[in-house]
Amino acid sequence: MSEHSYTLRIACDDQPGIVATVASALASRGANIIESNQFWDRQTNQFFLRIATSTPENVSKAEIELMLNPAVDRFNMKLKIDDLSRRPKIIIMVSKFDHAMLHLLYQIKVGWLDAEVAAIVSNHEDARKIADQEGIPFHYWPVNKENKIEQEAKLADLIKETKSELVVLARYMQVLTNDLSSQFYGMIINIHHSFLPSFKGAKPYHQAYERGVKLIGATAHYVTPDLDEGPIIEQETERVSHAMSAEDFVATGRDIEARVLARGVKYHLEGRVMLNKNRTVVFTQ
Amino acid sequence: MSEHSYTLRIACDDQPGIVATVASALASRGANIIESNQFWDRQTNQFFLRIATSTPENVSKAEIELMLNPAVDRFNMKLKIDDLSRRPKIIIMVSKFDHAMLHLLYQIKVGWLDAEVAAIVSNHEDARKIADQEGIPFHYWPVNKENKIEQEAKLADLIKETKSELVVLARYMQVLTNDLSSQFYGMIINIHHSFLPSFKGAKPYHQAYERGVKLIGATAHYVTPDLDEGPIIEQETERVSHAMSAEDFVATGRDIEARVLARGVKYHLEGRVMLNKNRTVVFTQ
Amino acid sequence: MSEHSYTLRIACDDQPGIVATVASALASRGANIIESNQFWDRQTNQFFLRIATSTPENVSKAEIELMLNPAVDRFNMKLKIDDLSRRPKIIIMVSKFDHAMLHLLYQIKVGWLDAEVAAIVSNHEDARKIADQEGIPFHYWPVNKENKIEQEAKLADLIKETKSELVVLARYMQVLTNDLSSQFYGMIINIHHSFLPSFKGAKPYHQAYERGVKLIGATAHYVTPDLDEGPIIEQETERVSHAMSAEDFVATGRDIEARVLARGVKYHLEGRVMLNKNRTVVFTQ
Amino acid sequence: MSEHSYTLRIACDDQPGIVATVASALASRGANIIESNQFWDRQTNQFFLRIATSTPENVSKAEIELMLNPAVDRFNMKLKIDDLSRRPKIIIMVSKFDHAMLHLLYQIKVGWLDAEVAAIVSNHEDARKIADQEGIPFHYWPVNKENKIEQEAKLADLIKETKSELVVLARYMQVLTNDLSSQFYGMIINIHHSFLPSFKGAKPYHQAYERGVKLIGATAHYVTPDLDEGPIIEQETERVSHAMSAEDFVATGRDIEARVLARGVKYHLEGRVMLNKNRTVVFTQ
Repeated sequence: MSEHSYTLRIACDDQPGIVATVASALASRGANIIESNQFWDRQTNQFFLRIATSTPENVSKAEIELMLNPAVDRFNMKLKIDDLSRRPKIIIMVSKFDHAMLHLLYQIKVGWLDAEVAAIVSNHEDARKIADQEGIPFHYWPVNKENKIEQEAKLADLIKETKSELVVLARYMQVLTNDLSSQFYGMIINIHHSFLPSFKGAKPYHQAYERGVKLIGATAHYVTPDLDEGPIIEQETERVSHAMSAEDFVATGRDIEARVLARGVKYHLEGRVMLNKNRTVVFTQ
Repeated sequence: MSEHSYTLRIACDDQPGIVATVASALASRGANIIESNQFWDRQTNQFFLRIATSTPENVSKAEIELMLNPAVDRFNMKLKIDDLSRRPKIIIMVSKFDHAMLHLLYQIKVGWLDAEVAAIVSNHEDARKIADQEGIPFHYWPVNKENKIEQEAKLADLIKETKSELVVLARYMQVLTNDLSSQFYGMIINIHHSFLPSFKGAKPYHQAYERGVKLIGATAHYVTPDLDEGPIIEQETERVSHAMSAEDFVATGRDIEARVLARGVKYHLEGRVMLNKNRTVVFTQ
Repeated sequence: MSEHSYTLRIACDDQPGIVATVASALASRGANIIESNQFWDRQTNQFFLRIATSTPENVSKAEIELMLNPAVDRFNMKLKIDDLSRRPKIIIMVSKFDHAMLHLLYQIKVGWLDAEVAAIVSNHEDARKIADQEGIPFHYWPVNKENKIEQEAKLADLIKETKSELVVLARYMQVLTNDLSSQFYGMIINIHHSFLPSFKGAKPYHQAYERGVKLIGATAHYVTPDLDEGPIIEQETERVSHAMSAEDFVATGRDIEARVLARGVKYHLEGRVMLNKNRTVVFTQ
Repeated sequence: MSEHSYTLRIACDDQPGIVATVASALASRGANIIESNQFWDRQTNQFFLRIATSTPENVSKAEIELMLNPAVDRFNMKLKIDDLSRRPKIIIMVSKFDHAMLHLLYQIKVGWLDAEVAAIVSNHEDARKIADQEGIPFHYWPVNKENKIEQEAKLADLIKETKSELVVLARYMQVLTNDLSSQFYGMIINIHHSFLPSFKGAKPYHQAYERGVKLIGATAHYVTPDLDEGPIIEQETERVSHAMSAEDFVATGRDIEARVLARGVKYHLEGRVMLNKNRTVVFTQ
């Protein structure tokens, strides 16, 4: 079609007339609403709106911004517009366990995830082979106490150079510094291999085994300075039994981690996730 | 609050400007949108919209209809408005197994389901005791080949007299006639004790056992003349094992049936279900 | 049939010959094994065995014990034999929320749970009506700092007098003392309304809401002096969304709590749960 | 350890003394039982037993058979013994969709599945690249009406030559002939991309979409001459919504198919699946 598609994300205090104003502005230039989701948080009176719109060919992103300017002013909106036809760039970080990364790469290949992997970054060499096979730039940046800040500076540069919209920690086993976490808040997704807030920190499957839980899980969340405390995007659990060892938990967990992370990344890239303080609004289909 | 709440359900062919027009009409009289869901069926180009709105005290349902009249004409909309503060009346039909009915009654008691049970109708006497305890009118209408049409006529009268919005077949084991199913299409919800379209007809748990499935389920659907073929509202499955008998399936199934039916009824009463030919659009939270 | 059925539960250090010895002893008197489950904990070398056996009419429980005496001595076994035809007595404790209790009573009524409720004990009067309807003795024992030990002494007496095998805390909102928890360790099951170890303590659904989790859950566990730290018997989770309030979590949680507790109680009463230090072995079908 | 591990699978009519006899025979030569599962089908009086045993180094498979000979004769048992230390060989057949195959290969690589892929067979060239990368023999055997019997003869030869224990149809889109299905009954596992018995035959996700189901699923089953009617090994479902297209169902289904098939294959290779006429006994952990 000779049409453009954009997603609009709007957040502001709730008040009458927001949808009418926005929808009228869009309609005035022939934009059609393909999908629309909204949420009013009664507790905080915050209003969240996501609109996917199909606009005539000659309507640019700048024009949409212009159309919406009065609404932005009137309602004191935070507005974010993304061109749906862009291919968002992401950086994948990984250590030794590659299942979550491989699942992401596969979902990109079959088109379920629409993204371009600008780089794979690792503190180990293991992922280089895959990166080479897929033709993805690979950076081996080992991390220790002395060079962590230096390596993170390289990462920050890489994000900016590649114009990446998202960094995915696909079982990257290094803790990021507070500085980096803060600087790119809402742009880094981690997969934690437990059902948070249970079993924060290291070896969560072994913690889960010791506690004798009957379900294990995984959590995709935004990275914050507070480790394992970031806003949760997606979670899932699966049944385990007394007859399973901690290693069996690890094996079962691989599948959960891979698909929870992939969904979290998809929601983020499609603009379906909005931050609501330390929680998320996730507009799934 | 000195406000009224209404739900609007709108269905029409998709075209630009629907949301803008409706939202502007609502905003013009100070109505605030509390919740809004929409769906555009690309296959059929049908557009479905549900809006829950909070309006100033002095805005009546008739006025909302008046406000929306131009939109209805312009877009050739089907529009349905419900007063959210009304307590919708329902009729529960049951035979001998009472778990699904009891779950509905409990969910009404604790306020999760907002409804008034206008009557319990049964082809057996078993449910009379519960009805009496709860102060609900009970009708014992046994059914056989000879009197089925007559009994259904009484049911049709009861629906009209009580102004019931929904008939819930909570394990009512009689097949309704084509006439009644057609007359009240979209107003009768049945719980079928299998994951439809598997195991239509009688004794589905025994069919499931014979087939050796590893999951069993239940399906809440609108009743149509074609038995077990009506639009599906809600489904759920649960794991079973080779060590379970058909009777164990029945026992496991009770819980599934009860909660699937309760959710289906809740979605219907809150105006979250819209018919899309033989499928449903279900706007859950 | 003119047969008796017993369940045997055996725990000891693992070593060759246990099953052969036990099975041979049983076979020597014509006992048939109906169901058998075993688990060897590699970490601790503990061996757990549950056998459901059908024995000729004239073989008493005392005789089975006699038959197994040599095995008990040889392998230093802990052995527990239950007559499957007995109707185990339980005490249900409840505060104001009655959904978990009602679900237990219903499951007993339809025969899925085989138990007799010896008494309902509450620190409120609310459950008296149900107890009276069902013909179950009701004890209103309000609890405060001053009388807690006294009231627990009455409970301990009641357990002994009624020969109850299990106390079920079906949303009983008082913490038991360390003394009582220790005295009846492995005989008191609580339902905690979160996916433990997440959200211990009070108002777990509100904690879950504040944390922004995407799944909520419930946990049936044995009561220990350490609050919410007891061995977990059964858990389950269900999906929630950002659009749900803490009160919606509570409503969704009711169903989860009711069925998780019912399963935990069933497993316990059928002798399917064995304690493995702070974890459980649960031999489900 | 200087020990051997074997799995024994036993099926016979139920009668007292089976476990005692088998366990005593094993104990007589110092074999320890690591894991044991049994099931008595009350309907058919069939008894199923799986024992994983650890035996002293000098006890061969032939000796175990010898030890068990009297039991086999006495109880008219079908006995199957597998050396757990063997690496079972499998053949993977695939057409164009490679997600299920890739998941199997990954699970083998990380050791969750213990198997050696003797060959990948396809009616398309697409999988050759992966086969080459992994160093697995690849056979491109396109199939049409004229050559189907000839190609299947090659497959039968390949199974025998490679001594493969299992053929996995990992989205192989050709129907096998009755002859081949019968010849290798219980040795060929297919993944069907629906929750059988719903949506047999072609394009099940599109059938599911048309029917408007709220859950989709996948089924791993043994192949029989009756298409999609074979004994079910494993199933799983996942929630879908009205907003998802048939293509979205396909995408969601990929994950379900991959893990359901992997579990089915694992259960089979570990000797956890036993045929009970048209159903299966699956002894999971």
